Amino acid sequence: MSRSALQSFTVHSDPSEGPIHLAALREALAAQKLDGFLVPRGDEHQGEYVPASEARLAWLTGFTGSAGLAIVLARKAALFVDGRYTLQAREQTDPASFKVVVIPETTPEAWIASHLGARKRLGFDPALHTLDEATRYRAAAQRAGATLVAVDSNPIDAVWSERPEPPAAAITLHPLEFSGEEAAAKLARIRAALGEERCDALLVSDPHAMAWAFNIRGGDVGHTPLPLGYGLIPAEGRPTLFLDARKLSNTIRVELSSLADIAEPATLGDALRELGAAGKRLRLDAATAGVKLKYAIEQAGGTADIGKDPIALMKAAKNPVEIAGSRAAHRRDGAAIVRFLHWFDTEAPKGGLTEISAAVKLEEFRAATGKLKDLSFPSISAAGPNAALPHYRVSEHSNRAIGPGIYLIDSGAQYEDGTTDITRTIAIGEPSPRMRDRNTRVLKGMIAIARAVFPKGTSGAQLDSFARQFLWQAGLDFEHGTGHGIGSYLSVHEGPQRISKAGAAPLLPGMILSDEPGYYKEGAFGIRIENLLVVEPRTIRGAERTMYGFETLTLAPIDRRLIVPRLLTRDERRWLDAYHARVLTEIGPLVEGAVRAWLEQATAPL
Amino acid sequence: MSRSALQSFTVHSDPSEGPIHLAALREALAAQKLDGFLVPRGDEHQGEYVPASEARLAWLTGFTGSAGLAIVLARKAALFVDGRYTLQAREQTDPASFKVVVIPETTPEAWIASHLGARKRLGFDPALHTLDEATRYRAAAQRAGATLVAVDSNPIDAVWSERPEPPAAAITLHPLEFSGEEAAAKLARIRAALGEERCDALLVSDPHAMAWAFNIRGGDVGHTPLPLGYGLIPAEGRPTLFLDARKLSNTIRVELSSLADIAEPATLGDALRELGAAGKRLRLDAATAGVKLKYAIEQAGGTADIGKDPIALMKAAKNPVEIAGSRAAHRRDGAAIVRFLHWFDTEAPKGGLTEISAAVKLEEFRAATGKLKDLSFPSISAAGPNAALPHYRVSEHSNRAIGPGIYLIDSGAQYEDGTTDITRTIAIGEPSPRMRDRNTRVLKGMIAIARAVFPKGTSGAQLDSFARQFLWQAGLDFEHGTGHGIGSYLSVHEGPQRISKAGAAPLLPGMILSDEPGYYKEGAFGIRIENLLVVEPRTIRGAERTMYGFETLTLAPIDRRLIVPRLLTRDERRWLDAYHARVLTEIGPLVEGAVRAWLEQATAPL
Repeated sequence: MSRSALQSFTVHSDPSEGPIHLAALREALAAQKLDGFLVPRGDEHQGEYVPASEARLAWLTGFTGSAGLAIVLARKAALFVDGRYTLQAREQTDPASFKVVVIPETTPEAWIASHLGARKRLGFDPALHTLDEATRYRAAAQRAGATLVAVDSNPIDAVWSERPEPPAAAITLHPLEFSGEEAAAKLARIRAALGEERCDALLVSDPHAMAWAFNIRGGDVGHTPLPLGYGLIPAEGRPTLFLDARKLSNTIRVELSSLADIAEPATLGDALRELGAAGKRLRLDAATAGVKLKYAIEQAGGTADIGKDPIALMKAAKNPVEIAGSRAAHRRDGAAIVRFLHWFDTEAPKGGLTEISAAVKLEEFRAATGKLKDLSFPSISAAGPNAALPHYRVSEHSNRAIGPGIYLIDSGAQYEDGTTDITRTIAIGEPSPRMRDRNTRVLKGMIAIARAVFPKGTSGAQLDSFARQFLWQAGLDFEHGTGHGIGSYLSVHEGPQRISKAGAAPLLPGMILSDEPGYYKEGAFGIRIENLLVVEPRTIRGAERTMYGFETLTLAPIDRRLIVPRLLTRDERRWLDAYHARVLTEIGPLVEGAVRAWLEQATAPL
Repeated sequence: MSRSALQSFTVHSDPSEGPIHLAALREALAAQKLDGFLVPRGDEHQGEYVPASEARLAWLTGFTGSAGLAIVLARKAALFVDGRYTLQAREQTDPASFKVVVIPETTPEAWIASHLGARKRLGFDPALHTLDEATRYRAAAQRAGATLVAVDSNPIDAVWSERPEPPAAAITLHPLEFSGEEAAAKLARIRAALGEERCDALLVSDPHAMAWAFNIRGGDVGHTPLPLGYGLIPAEGRPTLFLDARKLSNTIRVELSSLADIAEPATLGDALRELGAAGKRLRLDAATAGVKLKYAIEQAGGTADIGKDPIALMKAAKNPVEIAGSRAAHRRDGAAIVRFLHWFDTEAPKGGLTEISAAVKLEEFRAATGKLKDLSFPSISAAGPNAALPHYRVSEHSNRAIGPGIYLIDSGAQYEDGTTDITRTIAIGEPSPRMRDRNTRVLKGMIAIARAVFPKGTSGAQLDSFARQFLWQAGLDFEHGTGHGIGSYLSVHEGPQRISKAGAAPLLPGMILSDEPGYYKEGAFGIRIENLLVVEPRTIRGAERTMYGFETLTLAPIDRRLIVPRLLTRDERRWLDAYHARVLTEIGPLVEGAVRAWLEQATAPL
């Protein structure tokens, strides 16, 4: 069996524990005079990855997907998941205990309104829900004639025996050679933004924003080098970092102390009440701040200004050092990918490869760079019908042999100078004409985004359809967005920039985005081609607007065997040939022998 | 001088009356103990055209543009307009009385917050503002430490001597041969929608929606065959129409009485209070209902459910009879346009034409059809730099001679079977290479929309960029949306369907939209090409989604002399040639002699 240092292919979940945990929770609820309780998947930072100590939903239900919510009432309990998790939720949970409900056909709000019952008290942990969520659940409870009740401490925590310790991974500095801007300078920009918005302070509840602002990194969750914690940045005076002391070496503590006071996370509430008592106006991030923080400020007499964390936009627009770092990371990653693609082309036709063995091999090539810190997410290594699930994650249970046809691998790496994310769809043997047609349409859409030029102020929503048009012409489409933002040695999913119909944020120079249209034929195959792009100013002769375009960061061949040349326009073909020529120029010198020969052939003009 | 029956080229406005009216209003405010007052441009239906009796903003300030707001305080007064009206607002108003403020650089809310002053009372007429507006102005007043106060009667009405009478144009029936659906059937659909949304009744505050639901038309405002009034449609029981009795002939009254009770508009408040007292839940249209209606219901104990008027979507998706009517209207209108284009090509090169004389001539050709009810808006007849103003309206003051170069005419007609809206840009003599390049880019964008195919659920926002991409490639763009919805013998601007980055409504079969990209070179020239399209289901072999596309309704040649053929792809050229062939087939039989000969040449393949 192949082994991976950074990925687990085993799913730890046991439906049989659900009934026991559910009974324990119900007892705890009864003791608190609650008729029900909301158990979200997220932690108090609304992060994509939550530490094991915060995996309350998995503890309660057995369900380990990345999005979900349980609502526990005295006699029934429902687990809400979206379409991609329906099957997994049913497999992982005890059907007698939890009814799996699919969002959006039935929303939790609708379910509450019709199942809660009048005069009931529905509890929720205000640390784990944003204001927006709390408002919606409160309205739903009111429609049922019931009340939503904020609890002081989470009843699950009281009955969760063998709960893992909170993570306390060492915090490291993210040095200037990678960050490109001193934390002091960033803090000055943040303070200026607070002044413009007339806020006395900013509560940084998104650990990504904290990590960016203070140039620190950590290891508290998987795949993202995050230290969990909070920052409090006043418009005037010293910031405070709320960090578990165990994460700080003496050296780091000294470094950080030049920027901020350091306090235990448990003292955050007191700090907020102090600000509140002084009548201060505090900006809370609508997307990540638990409503508990709002209550703390307001009950003490202050004002909670729920809005945008100004750091999000600063972090999203990378500076020249970060962009140079990303280019370097993509060259390094590109060489690893090229070694993998060469290996795959040699081995796959012989048979015997599996989704897991291929994913592990790619990880080995990345680890061999000597710079790999982590994968930026568990690789999506998918053969046959598994590739038709855009969010597929291979497990020992689902693992398929890689046979003739096409194979999809979506993967990424965390390097200190940059985060990568790349998808390639690869031919094995003779792919069908339909596969080649679909792949060519996907590629045309991907190229349309890469070649787009657009005026300042244009949002990702305004570009999204460029990626879909060639599929639409054949009556086809894909269900996910075209692209997401990417952090700089931070999360591989970063906002506010995105290319999707919901991507309202105007694109700014320095923003890094993925460009990854796809096509999925249920039960048969899946196609996705993904490069990362960075927004750059674009000079056009005679232009009347400030114009932007994209520089492609990702450097790896796109499988020419899956392209129908006559479906490409001259401009598309030129783009592809130029891209491949650039891949050869930049990656060629980094590989040798048979790999180099393979690369020359894989990047030849169409 | 040319004469028009349906358009006025004279602007009635006198800046010198502003100070007198302003002083009178301030006296009235002082009597009501108000420190300020909001004077919006809209009437109580938020209509695009307001009757003279509701033109309070024009009475007060002299400003006659189609959008604006005055805020009158004791010592200062500001007139808020958007960029297209800056110049006009300055020309039409007394600078010592009104400071012209440009939105969005300064919003009324920001201005209120910084100019109103603490403990002041800012009045507003709740009949004239939606809930959303009232909420925003209230928050702004609060930021100033002041209060927003709803007045019972508008203080302007008390001091407005010589105020015109409210309009009372005769109401007509819109017969089944044009409407395609009996009012009774429409009312049944509306009641079903109310049931689904758990509302006891719908207050129809948009006269377009009332006209559609009851199959009636009127003439209370310019260019749209609207009767002003309200409808009240209970989920069960008979509707009530609140209509001025003077508008109803005995015959119409009998017809309408089979559907609804008829009451005077002044009794609407009592009807709402009655519903409120019975604890009913009433749907109010967020976009058009004055907040006064909400107050009336809530103060009586009922619930105001501010949301979408379900009629809007029903009205937007035209039925087969309406679509057939629109096709007939466009053939008729196309023949008039072709006669005009022939006449223009003959006369313009001789010199002597003006923007007004050309607009009047086109109106004559339309009137000669014998079916013209009205123009659907005052024609935009624009030569030279006037065409660079997308919303230009010719007046005797602005009227330009039409000389060599290009000329733009955007116009439309109201026929009982359909409303039209078409823009053509026409060459006179030898247009410059830049004009031809820009025109070709605009045309390519226009064709990209016309040829688009897209899955069910796609919104106009998702298509908008298709129209801009070829301008973007040259660093150019246009400032307006690509297209708006059009009614069926109703408003030429109808929602919710639109093609713009704000067009969130999914497009549905039967929706009619304009497709009108443009390019505007300030101080020099303007280009716009506009056809109307109707959304239709599209069958594609092998399609996996329900797909839609557009049928082009507008039938008139697009000036081939302004096209650079080598900039068109083969598919674009094919589209244009096929469109022109269709224009010749459909319009050819309706014209004769020299016009027919001209049409054959104008529709020849490129």
